[in-house]
Amino acid sequence: MAGQASKDEEGGRHGPGPAMTLLLTNARILTMDGARTEHERGWLRIEGTTIAALAPGDAPQVAGAEIIDCGGDLVMPGLVNTHCHLAMTLFRGLGEDVDDRLYRYILPLERHFVGPEMVRIGTALAALESIMGGTTSVADMYYFETMVGEVMAASGLRAIVGQTLADFSPPDHADFDEGFARVEELVDRFAGHPLVIPSIAPHAPYSTGRAVMARIADWSADHPHVPVQMHLAESTLEVEWAKNTHAASTVAVTRDAGLLKPGLIAAHCLQLDDADIAMMAEAGVGVATNPRSNGKAGRGIAPIEALRKAGLPAGIGSDGAMSGNTLDLFAQFAPVSMFAKLRAGSRRPLPAVDVITMATIEGARVLGLADKVGSLAVGKQADLIRIDLSAPRLHPIYDIYAMLVFATLPTDIRATMVAGRWLMVDRQVQTLERDKVLADATQLAGQFRAEMARIDERLRQ
Amino acid sequence: MAGQASKDEEGGRHGPGPAMTLLLTNARILTMDGARTEHERGWLRIEGTTIAALAPGDAPQVAGAEIIDCGGDLVMPGLVNTHCHLAMTLFRGLGEDVDDRLYRYILPLERHFVGPEMVRIGTALAALESIMGGTTSVADMYYFETMVGEVMAASGLRAIVGQTLADFSPPDHADFDEGFARVEELVDRFAGHPLVIPSIAPHAPYSTGRAVMARIADWSADHPHVPVQMHLAESTLEVEWAKNTHAASTVAVTRDAGLLKPGLIAAHCLQLDDADIAMMAEAGVGVATNPRSNGKAGRGIAPIEALRKAGLPAGIGSDGAMSGNTLDLFAQFAPVSMFAKLRAGSRRPLPAVDVITMATIEGARVLGLADKVGSLAVGKQADLIRIDLSAPRLHPIYDIYAMLVFATLPTDIRATMVAGRWLMVDRQVQTLERDKVLADATQLAGQFRAEMARIDERLRQ
Ligand SMILES: [Zn+2]
Ligand SMILES: [Zn+2]
Repeated sequence: MAGQASKDEEGGRHGPGPAMTLLLTNARILTMDGARTEHERGWLRIEGTTIAALAPGDAPQVAGAEIIDCGGDLVMPGLVNTHCHLAMTLFRGLGEDVDDRLYRYILPLERHFVGPEMVRIGTALAALESIMGGTTSVADMYYFETMVGEVMAASGLRAIVGQTLADFSPPDHADFDEGFARVEELVDRFAGHPLVIPSIAPHAPYSTGRAVMARIADWSADHPHVPVQMHLAESTLEVEWAKNTHAASTVAVTRDAGLLKPGLIAAHCLQLDDADIAMMAEAGVGVATNPRSNGKAGRGIAPIEALRKAGLPAGIGSDGAMSGNTLDLFAQFAPVSMFAKLRAGSRRPLPAVDVITMATIEGARVLGLADKVGSLAVGKQADLIRIDLSAPRLHPIYDIYAMLVFATLPTDIRATMVAGRWLMVDRQVQTLERDKVLADATQLAGQFRAEMARIDERLRQ
Repeated sequence: MAGQASKDEEGGRHGPGPAMTLLLTNARILTMDGARTEHERGWLRIEGTTIAALAPGDAPQVAGAEIIDCGGDLVMPGLVNTHCHLAMTLFRGLGEDVDDRLYRYILPLERHFVGPEMVRIGTALAALESIMGGTTSVADMYYFETMVGEVMAASGLRAIVGQTLADFSPPDHADFDEGFARVEELVDRFAGHPLVIPSIAPHAPYSTGRAVMARIADWSADHPHVPVQMHLAESTLEVEWAKNTHAASTVAVTRDAGLLKPGLIAAHCLQLDDADIAMMAEAGVGVATNPRSNGKAGRGIAPIEALRKAGLPAGIGSDGAMSGNTLDLFAQFAPVSMFAKLRAGSRRPLPAVDVITMATIEGARVLGLADKVGSLAVGKQADLIRIDLSAPRLHPIYDIYAMLVFATLPTDIRATMVAGRWLMVDRQVQTLERDKVLADATQLAGQFRAEMARIDERLRQ
């Protein structure tokens, strides 16, 4: 299976095998710990999958350790993408300026093409892009999610893989019973996996319905370690649905169904009033904001300042590439910052350090992973990225967070590590067959294009 | 002088000397001509500074020509940055989240440090970054502009260099008479230069005043080939000033002073009503929109759709790196698109092809350069960029314009050419001493930081 073959460079220069000791020396370190500790020049010791020590200054000698001199590169926690539809890379830029593209192209193409093979190829492309973009944890919701889990496991990324449940006859379940069977299959396959966490993903309140949301809430009570993800308050249409069907806000409908509960990963959260925000804070929900997706759709600006002030953790999501075009979080940093400032009419809201917090430790909280990842600290998993600071664009540096938010590009990332394993070294992804993945994706895109031409032809007749 | 030394690779593999013939073959070509002609696979012939031929298919044999096989890379017009303060790269990210940073740090630092040497270093850093970001033409307004012109001439970029005039005792003129003397010196130095065009730049209506704007309008009438640049309708404070001082809109004050005229490059244009837009259209003004700068300041969203519908050409600007952090236009593409869609509450406005139009031929119109650059056509100057399409992030491609707007990064640019001369080849800038420029900038930033510490110390006392 393409996308699963590993080059297995572990133990080589770029090691280590997970049981080895690795010393990263001469690094500028951004820990994103509670005190936002930074070391101008410091070192990290990694034992197996775990950070065993980090400190400023010169590294102590460790017998048998592999030493990597970072040459002043920045080392920081890997980024946490809190909302994505990985396999939709295959729809990137498709019908971009076609007003009715959803009904004209995308739903017909999904009906025609979405199956395990398409999901395998699209997810592998997404994994390549994510690793190259510095993402180390990602929350996905799509179809044939067991296949998503297989590809993610092979890629070495940390992933929450959410089987979508929806009432519009999506490609992998004709009804909710079939949908639940998909979820059970997914949970059985990945229970106890060190990196891949199975998840249940009601598509949205309007496309699940209150009764099924209640059924999912019951199921979830019996499966407390399976995260729940859902689109919430994304569009005015959804607000209308809740009002017309239940005479309530979409957040209230979700609460009444029992789904608004600690650990819910709520994506978008655009159409909220103060009461909705209070309900969400009371319930202990986490927010995944997707500024590029929302901005490109002209849908509006999420009230991130208000949500965070109410105590809700907010992470950043790329959404699928059909909506946001790229999966790296760097593309989201300036938008999330600018949108908060535009909404407030001031330069002050959401300082750069908060954006990086959202992309790391706060995003980890949203995904329920904050005890494991999101900051560099002893005992945490070694999920980190190494960033080359040599580009003229990154000179001078007065404020490292502002540099990351407004000037750094994913291509500045030299290496990406998850659980002590290098997934990318010197811009080369170690765990996926890049050429094969790109060839498969290009071939499938050709079939999409041919089908689009047939659709256009039929519509002309 | 650093920033002027040329590696002079002309005539080598990456030639040509300006008198040679160069064939670019096997290129995907985006012409941005009137018909938006694209060639899936084509070639270009360049004679000296000029495009001599381009067509789809295989290139004909040309005796003595240097041939560069582009291997399927995209070749398109170089980007036109319609508004910048180049030397302000040295302030990039400085006091990013400090509310009163302008009065606390930036004005004191400008008073202390802005001189020919600071301008030389900051402009050289900006030139490096611009070339690496695919910009081939840029409009600048700052101080000691003759020095800006010298550095730009050495860099090989095409530049409109605007001497700023302002009433707040800026670093290079105590009064407007001295300011005009600076302008005259600049015009004398660069009259007839093939790439560097001298320009006069009243800072803004409120910081120039109606009487001096009228004096500049008179001067401009005597110097029809010297472009005029100005910030216009950037802030609500400016609107207040115009209302309180002249009982009119800031656009009307500018018109009454005689400055609203064909060729005026008006930057920002945020605070406009319909009457202002009609006045600007009537006058034949060009607009330089700076979405990242405006968004980061929380100032608002320019009415780009309305301006373009009224017939005004609109280009894209980076503004200075103090405001927008980076100088490449790719960082502006998603914001300019999203802002138009958010303003309208719809996915439809400003399709991707329009964004790329603004960044190329329409930007060239704003700068008065559309007869020379902004599209690839026979007889035009060979200002172009070559973009590597191999990144996973750029797969698949259904819509090349959407790819450029939402997925391409400046680091995908392999080579940059102005007037037939390669300024960058394989990501290596040919015309500036990168290491020296970065070392100079880092050294000067250290002095800035020390002065900031002194300022903080004084304020604590
Ligand atoms: Zn989504
Ligand atoms: Zn400006």
